[in-house]
Amino acid sequence: MTAYDTPTIFERTLRGELPAHKVYEDAHTLAFLHFAPRSPGHTVIIPKVRSRNLFDVGREELAQVMRSAQTIAKAAMTALGADGVILHQVNEEAADQTVFYFHVHIIPCYEGIEVKPPRGPMEKPEILAIPAAKLWNALMGPKD
Amino acid sequence: MTAYDTPTIFERTLRGELPAHKVYEDAHTLAFLHFAPRSPGHTVIIPKVRSRNLFDVGREELAQVMRSAQTIAKAAMTALGADGVILHQVNEEAADQTVFYFHVHIIPCYEGIEVKPPRGPMEKPEILAIPAAKLWNALMGPKD
Repeated sequence: MTAYDTPTIFERTLRGELPAHKVYEDAHTLAFLHFAPRSPGHTVIIPKVRSRNLFDVGREELAQVMRSAQTIAKAAMTALGADGVILHQVNEEAADQTVFYFHVHIIPCYEGIEVKPPRGPMEKPEILAIPAAKLWNALMGPKD
Repeated sequence: MTAYDTPTIFERTLRGELPAHKVYEDAHTLAFLHFAPRSPGHTVIIPKVRSRNLFDVGREELAQVMRSAQTIAKAAMTALGADGVILHQVNEEAADQTVFYFHVHIIPCYEGIEVKPPRGPMEKPEILAIPAAKLWNALMGPKD
């Protein structure tokens, strides 16, 4: 088991200590684009209350994250023109969990475009900004 | 979009018209082993109320399925000796959805054993029976 007392990059994102292309936020959850997307619009959603993964996340937090994931998945279809969506969620190193803060991947799928394998290269911020703006506008309204 | 008015294999499983290696059941959800498992104990969980996928599943049903998924994932760690768990959930053909009834895959991971790609060969019933019995006993108590 990896140490649990160091802030993960997701907690640092939540605190605003790391830059992120946010796509959705409510009282309980925050969603932002993955920095190395498996497809355009690949989003990570986290609860605001800390947990390691599915094994210790609270039932209420789990429900809140899934509710937000559903909202974002629908927006990926309308605002990004996705043809389908994959949800993917990993727990512990044997399942390839690398950030030990509960999170769900929302991976938009597009006909004729292959979803990339995990751990690909980082995407350029100016490229990430495009689907981020589309999702944010669809979900949260225009930014000032 | 695939037709929605024919019963899927999951509805037929729910009605008891198809054999299944059940691992968990409550008032709202049913879980059974995948017939072509990506790893030993690969389970599918469905709500008892019909929906096509994440885009139309009710929020209550979504929460119930995830609550059961969490319970089963924990049991996979203790009763099957898994080292981690993957949750995987697909929506529409572009995301490789083949059964149009909302479902979540629970894929136990074991150190040193590769998770197989989707759409592998069917497993023998007598092999499936082993993890099915372990999970059922852990989750539901011994069968009569």
